[in-house]
Amino acid sequence: MNETLSLLYSHHSDRSFTDKPVSEEDLRSILEAARRAPTSKNSQHVSMVVVRDAGRRARIAEAAGGQKWIATAPVFIAVILDFYKTGIGVEVAGEKQDIQETVEGLLAGVTDVGIALAAMIDAARSLGLGIVPLGGIRRNPQAMIDVLEIPHLAFPLVGLSIGYVDKPATLKPRLPMETFRHDERYHTEGIREAIVEYDATMLEYWKSIDRPDGKTWSLNTAESYKESGSRPVKAAINKQGITFER
Amino acid sequence: MNETLSLLYSHHSDRSFTDKPVSEEDLRSILEAARRAPTSKNSQHVSMVVVRDAGRRARIAEAAGGQKWIATAPVFIAVILDFYKTGIGVEVAGEKQDIQETVEGLLAGVTDVGIALAAMIDAARSLGLGIVPLGGIRRNPQAMIDVLEIPHLAFPLVGLSIGYVDKPATLKPRLPMETFRHDERYHTEGIREAIVEYDATMLEYWKSIDRPDGKTWSLNTAESYKESGSRPVKAAINKQGITFER
Repeated sequence: MNETLSLLYSHHSDRSFTDKPVSEEDLRSILEAARRAPTSKNSQHVSMVVVRDAGRRARIAEAAGGQKWIATAPVFIAVILDFYKTGIGVEVAGEKQDIQETVEGLLAGVTDVGIALAAMIDAARSLGLGIVPLGGIRRNPQAMIDVLEIPHLAFPLVGLSIGYVDKPATLKPRLPMETFRHDERYHTEGIREAIVEYDATMLEYWKSIDRPDGKTWSLNTAESYKESGSRPVKAAINKQGITFER
Repeated sequence: MNETLSLLYSHHSDRSFTDKPVSEEDLRSILEAARRAPTSKNSQHVSMVVVRDAGRRARIAEAAGGQKWIATAPVFIAVILDFYKTGIGVEVAGEKQDIQETVEGLLAGVTDVGIALAAMIDAARSLGLGIVPLGGIRRNPQAMIDVLEIPHLAFPLVGLSIGYVDKPATLKPRLPMETFRHDERYHTEGIREAIVEYDATMLEYWKSIDRPDGKTWSLNTAESYKESGSRPVKAAINKQGITFER
């Protein structure tokens, strides 16, 4: 197996970091990987805000619902969906940008945010660093916008904490391949049975790492969707002028 | 530089493929990388439809606006935002899923689609294969839903063509790092100047690869946003029951 595949197969989030700083050289390598990542039609509607300042990281950790690894890991990077930057380009071309009013623009931009995040994760891990991707920054998006001074038409979509790992995490089992891969067309048969089986696997997994309070995947997903579904995301992103109304 | 970094730094889309098939073993390796990729709160709201059948690929190429590489590359994979699968899990847990009604759910799911797509791109390229990511499948989303028999609460967000490269593509210049990286907070100063400079770089690039009709980034972005902004995406995704109304 090549180095890239074994990196991709061993993905996990680490939530325990030492205070050893991340070098500027490594940080540049990580950001360059994201800058080189593909974007829809080369639109490059993605930007990064790199936060090293401890006070700012503490505020972000609080806004994300008390995720202490944001405060302990030495670097936090916010991945920005950035129609502010593209808007300048469109204006330079003598036009007025309205992609932020469309669902298509949102989908294309957010997909590219995910691609850029993945590039940083892989780059960081290839350099021996640990990571946690942080969707929790959308618990209080307005606080993130304020802390990072995000301009109109831009939105901090997801974060990434990077640092040297203290206690490495374990690999979580995933839903089986037959619920993930469909050949030629989507096959709905057997998904429920596979989920029930995976639920049992997850309970065994939690026991094996001494977390007997761990839940089935089904219950965990039901509960986490309930929490995340109540986040004030729509108001915050619309207020930035990203309205995707058509 | 390590193998993963050099892979990430050399990303480019190839649009010229031989008819040499992709082995089932390589395909499994590529899908496994995506299955192991991180998802928000382990929700795993992503699935793949693998299309090898030439007739089906021809229909997809047409739906995507005549992108012939979908028909020539031996494998096409549609990346599905999949709240159908999670809905079964939520039901198994005795609850009713409503995450598809929220903007938060859409953002979390689409980010994870991007992450999974990136994992497949990197895995394929590490195996010596070429790729083209295809947002163009959203030109006619309803046709994609029909061809791939996508169930309610799921949506084919983006595609990937994979194959052995015939004529390799070149690396496109990107917007400079100072428009991409912001330290501590977003800095709006200097972005316009950097864009104007990059526009000139792009014109030189197009000339250097014998494409004298190539456009500045600004004009290209203005035009491609105009095309993509008119796609019937909202109606199609809402019809699937993914309504993100709150």
